[in-house]
Amino acid sequence: MRRRNVKNAKARIVEHLDLVISNPQDYKGKWSSLFANENPIYLEIGMGKGQFLLANAKENPNINYIGIEKFDSVIVQAVEKIVPLHLTNIKLINADAEALNTIFAPQEIKKIFLNFSDPWPKNRHEKRRLTSYNFLKQYENILDGTIEMKTDNQSLFSYSLISFNENHWHFLAIYLDLHNQITDEKIITTEYEDKFIAKGSPIYYIKVEKGRN
Amino acid sequence: MRRRNVKNAKARIVEHLDLVISNPQDYKGKWSSLFANENPIYLEIGMGKGQFLLANAKENPNINYIGIEKFDSVIVQAVEKIVPLHLTNIKLINADAEALNTIFAPQEIKKIFLNFSDPWPKNRHEKRRLTSYNFLKQYENILDGTIEMKTDNQSLFSYSLISFNENHWHFLAIYLDLHNQITDEKIITTEYEDKFIAKGSPIYYIKVEKGRN
Repeated sequence: MRRRNVKNAKARIVEHLDLVISNPQDYKGKWSSLFANENPIYLEIGMGKGQFLLANAKENPNINYIGIEKFDSVIVQAVEKIVPLHLTNIKLINADAEALNTIFAPQEIKKIFLNFSDPWPKNRHEKRRLTSYNFLKQYENILDGTIEMKTDNQSLFSYSLISFNENHWHFLAIYLDLHNQITDEKIITTEYEDKFIAKGSPIYYIKVEKGRN
Repeated sequence: MRRRNVKNAKARIVEHLDLVISNPQDYKGKWSSLFANENPIYLEIGMGKGQFLLANAKENPNINYIGIEKFDSVIVQAVEKIVPLHLTNIKLINADAEALNTIFAPQEIKKIFLNFSDPWPKNRHEKRRLTSYNFLKQYENILDGTIEMKTDNQSLFSYSLISFNENHWHFLAIYLDLHNQITDEKIITTEYEDKFIAKGSPIYYIKVEKGRN
């Protein structure tokens, strides 16, 4: 995603500490208490400008949503979209996804969304891909449910299929052209996804769950 | 693939019993002796009109190729292409792939090719797909190596990814648009594939090997 410099992003984020949690480690194992209910918690890693998370949170008031985004110039745009809506089932974290284990307790998360993650095409950057071994190990720990991944990137999708397979995740569903194959239900999209659909590019989708054996 | 009625197909096949093996069960565990060498044996299931098998056999004289095709109106077209070339490293079998275990001994085959197999889109025909559970179990038995699959069919490819994963096959390589992603080496194609490339449709490819655990 292209990132613009956004003026005073940090300052504009800290004005909303009820939405953007500044000390996420303190809530490890206690996110339900922060939401003040026992509803399932869904996590979007790299939530960007927030369109996907926001639409989900509006549509599903009985699910709690957490978005993680490392770039403050990006997350600030999500913040300013979400604040006026006064949604109580959404929280944001301005952090890297490297240390999910320090933020969430085992099985605290019911679903993880990976939407249009950075493909990191160079071999030497493999470890940064959100479906590489170390990330999958973290997801295995914090997750009690499924991962849903969408991407337009062929190399990242192939890589992810191989990585999920190698790490014994179960494949529940795969689409090689999501928006042309699913026509009977509404699909919540990201900002980035909308541009790709407009161009007619296929969106790849996979849903997996942790291995049972 | 569209099948025409071919006049006297059966009669034209039996003229070439050195190429089209009429009693394949008799060679179970003994295919090397039929080829009169110890070269690896590659098997194409549903070899159609034979372009792929023939090009491979010409290019790799040190590999033995066997093609299985159930429709005599189709296999006869392969026969008449192959006969004039006097290749000694190619044999055909006019049979269904249902009973591979009666034709090949455990680990007798080094590679299996599945090219543009019938997708059998209806759920009730799932068992006929060449990547369904029962077929994979047979491949596991007769194979000591890899399967390479190509298809233009999204549903069959998704289904196959899920089936290979569920049955503990290891993913070695995946391409979501084979001919645009591999540009530095020659790819041997089938007749059907050539038509799809001409239309610009993506060809999906996966290479798998039997699970080690």
